[in-house]
Amino acid sequence: MYRLHDNITSGNAYKVRLLLSQLCIPFERIEYDIDRNETREPEFLQKNPNGRIPLLELAPGRFLAESNAILCYLAEDTHFLPADRLQRAQAMQWLFFEQYNHEPNIATVRYWITHKIEMTDFRRQAMPVKRADGIAALGVMEQHLAGREWFVGTAYSIADIALYAYTHVADQGGFDLVPFPSIRRWLNRVAAEPNHVAISDTTVGAIR
Amino acid sequence: MYRLHDNITSGNAYKVRLLLSQLCIPFERIEYDIDRNETREPEFLQKNPNGRIPLLELAPGRFLAESNAILCYLAEDTHFLPADRLQRAQAMQWLFFEQYNHEPNIATVRYWITHKIEMTDFRRQAMPVKRADGIAALGVMEQHLAGREWFVGTAYSIADIALYAYTHVADQGGFDLVPFPSIRRWLNRVAAEPNHVAISDTTVGAIR
Repeated sequence: MYRLHDNITSGNAYKVRLLLSQLCIPFERIEYDIDRNETREPEFLQKNPNGRIPLLELAPGRFLAESNAILCYLAEDTHFLPADRLQRAQAMQWLFFEQYNHEPNIATVRYWITHKIEMTDFRRQAMPVKRADGIAALGVMEQHLAGREWFVGTAYSIADIALYAYTHVADQGGFDLVPFPSIRRWLNRVAAEPNHVAISDTTVGAIR
Repeated sequence: MYRLHDNITSGNAYKVRLLLSQLCIPFERIEYDIDRNETREPEFLQKNPNGRIPLLELAPGRFLAESNAILCYLAEDTHFLPADRLQRAQAMQWLFFEQYNHEPNIATVRYWITHKIEMTDFRRQAMPVKRADGIAALGVMEQHLAGREWFVGTAYSIADIALYAYTHVADQGGFDLVPFPSIRRWLNRVAAEPNHVAISDTTVGAIR
């Protein structure tokens, strides 16, 4: 059985919990206290030298890191990744957009606020920059979703899962989604997909 | 013929030029002056709403953005992307690592320095943070490359191309590679691969 090295508040880890749940794949969850830097301890660094969750243990001692790489791995040959070559590349495009333009802004601001991270001079200066860049990323999403149901083609895919993870909790970072009606309709569509689970659901993974 | 919307100083764009050259695929290069924000003008934003190069025009009006998504697209069914499912996922892991832990630090610092970007208060505060995070990313690479020739399996792949792009010019951002001997040996191996081209080579793309 897969073991997911996890943190329940992490949107990156939630992506993996959501896809595993929607694939009906049971898994074991190992929770790490990221506020106590448990993923920077020597025992964890042996598993992932980059010191981050989520980390999927495919077999004892065999690890895969990076949330979106894990999504690609799990989605292969399923309807969560388009079979068409161009659409598959477009899914990749949105996965990289998510990690470069979206997560470092929207997720990071949420993390600083909800985990009560110390406001260093750097973070104080970075906050308005990240807020503006996060809003710009939401603008790119809104424009793309106008007249579309899903990010790629005509079906729900890992591109939607990756972007949903931190968009649906963006308000926790102070991002107002009222100016983004297409995004709000899309969030509702994602939440209505079969076997959807909530980010806070600690019971995921068990066979139901 | 592919058209690459390009900038010759960009490591992200260089990844695509390098892979296209190594695949012996001819392409047309369209150069943008990023210092004059040419990729933020309305005509370009119609091509890529995210306002960034590289952008690969697969056919007239059909565009693919995000350098690493373009690498995935071009490498499919070639020896630049492993056929083994786990190794393919490991390649993805390094591509996401590159865009999250490496490029925003090493490439951004290089950009601020070499393009003589105005040192705002934010950038002044961010510089030492990005320098430390960039060195940490190099540390993860060094540890992985100790005893390995390539990032994934036993062959050169798009994981190597993606990480080479900004590592081999890291000195332009003030990153010293002397403490990273495994990285330096790997850089030499990458540069010795067939059909390698330099980042500054403006003649790439033409049929030779």
